[in-house]
Amino acid sequence: MSDFRIDTATDADVPALLRLIRGLAEYERLSHLVVATEEALRAALFGHRPVAEAILARVDGEVVGFAVFFPSFSTFAGRPNMYLEDLYVEPQWRRRGAGRKLFAHVARVAAARGCGQMSWSVLHWNEPALNFYRGLGAAPVKDWVGYHLSGESFRRLAKDEG
Amino acid sequence: MSDFRIDTATDADVPALLRLIRGLAEYERLSHLVVATEEALRAALFGHRPVAEAILARVDGEVVGFAVFFPSFSTFAGRPNMYLEDLYVEPQWRRRGAGRKLFAHVARVAAARGCGQMSWSVLHWNEPALNFYRGLGAAPVKDWVGYHLSGESFRRLAKDEG
Repeated sequence: MSDFRIDTATDADVPALLRLIRGLAEYERLSHLVVATEEALRAALFGHRPVAEAILARVDGEVVGFAVFFPSFSTFAGRPNMYLEDLYVEPQWRRRGAGRKLFAHVARVAAARGCGQMSWSVLHWNEPALNFYRGLGAAPVKDWVGYHLSGESFRRLAKDEG
Repeated sequence: MSDFRIDTATDADVPALLRLIRGLAEYERLSHLVVATEEALRAALFGHRPVAEAILARVDGEVVGFAVFFPSFSTFAGRPNMYLEDLYVEPQWRRRGAGRKLFAHVARVAAARGCGQMSWSVLHWNEPALNFYRGLGAAPVKDWVGYHLSGESFRRLAKDEG
């Protein structure tokens, strides 16, 4: 079906990874949110205490897609889940199985580490992605609403002495 | 306002923690999902490679509330976030500031580790929790839908050779 090779990203792949992250943000109409730098990615992925892992899809050595993931934890299940932060394939390389290969690779890593499931978030208007996820047998999370605390409210609470 | 003391859970607190996790599940009408055991929590929180951290609220030594959290990662921000998996105070100890103390403790840990925000999920019908979060200045995540892949679909993909 394809000659995509999936491997684990290394420090040397950070420039390519940042290029793809920017491509993903552009596709998601969220370029204004990208403040990541090569230095920040290097620290987060390959520093002293990595917070996430990245894998790449290559064709003839050229990086054409990536996935970033990290373990989460369910207290009810009492076991880790795998959270898929990003999955992206460059437009000209889509519909040839690279996305599925990346996704399956993350699933294998997750299963090998004792995770019971994978989870992620998708923009509600992203029909191609939604179709891809449905085709894998994935289901939307029901009943739960995501919340976040950031900016000044976050900083204020972090200084709260309780 | 209160005499709640917040501290980091240890191995010895696992039975109390599991009791509170079951209390939370009952409140969320999700008791049927709780399969966690003391052994599983011990491995996840205090094992060789911990996947999450737990803090406790105590009154006179008695455990009356808890929070569980772990770092997540934003590729766009290029920095970690802190994900709050659970926050719970026993019914008879509510409305005295324990929840806010637990929340503020997690915010302090998050800020100290370079996180730009905290995030979590809440059941859409949980008005007391929603009011508490709004009072802190938190906002719902818009435009994104959570998805998950579990059970046979997850296991099948994990065996996919691509």
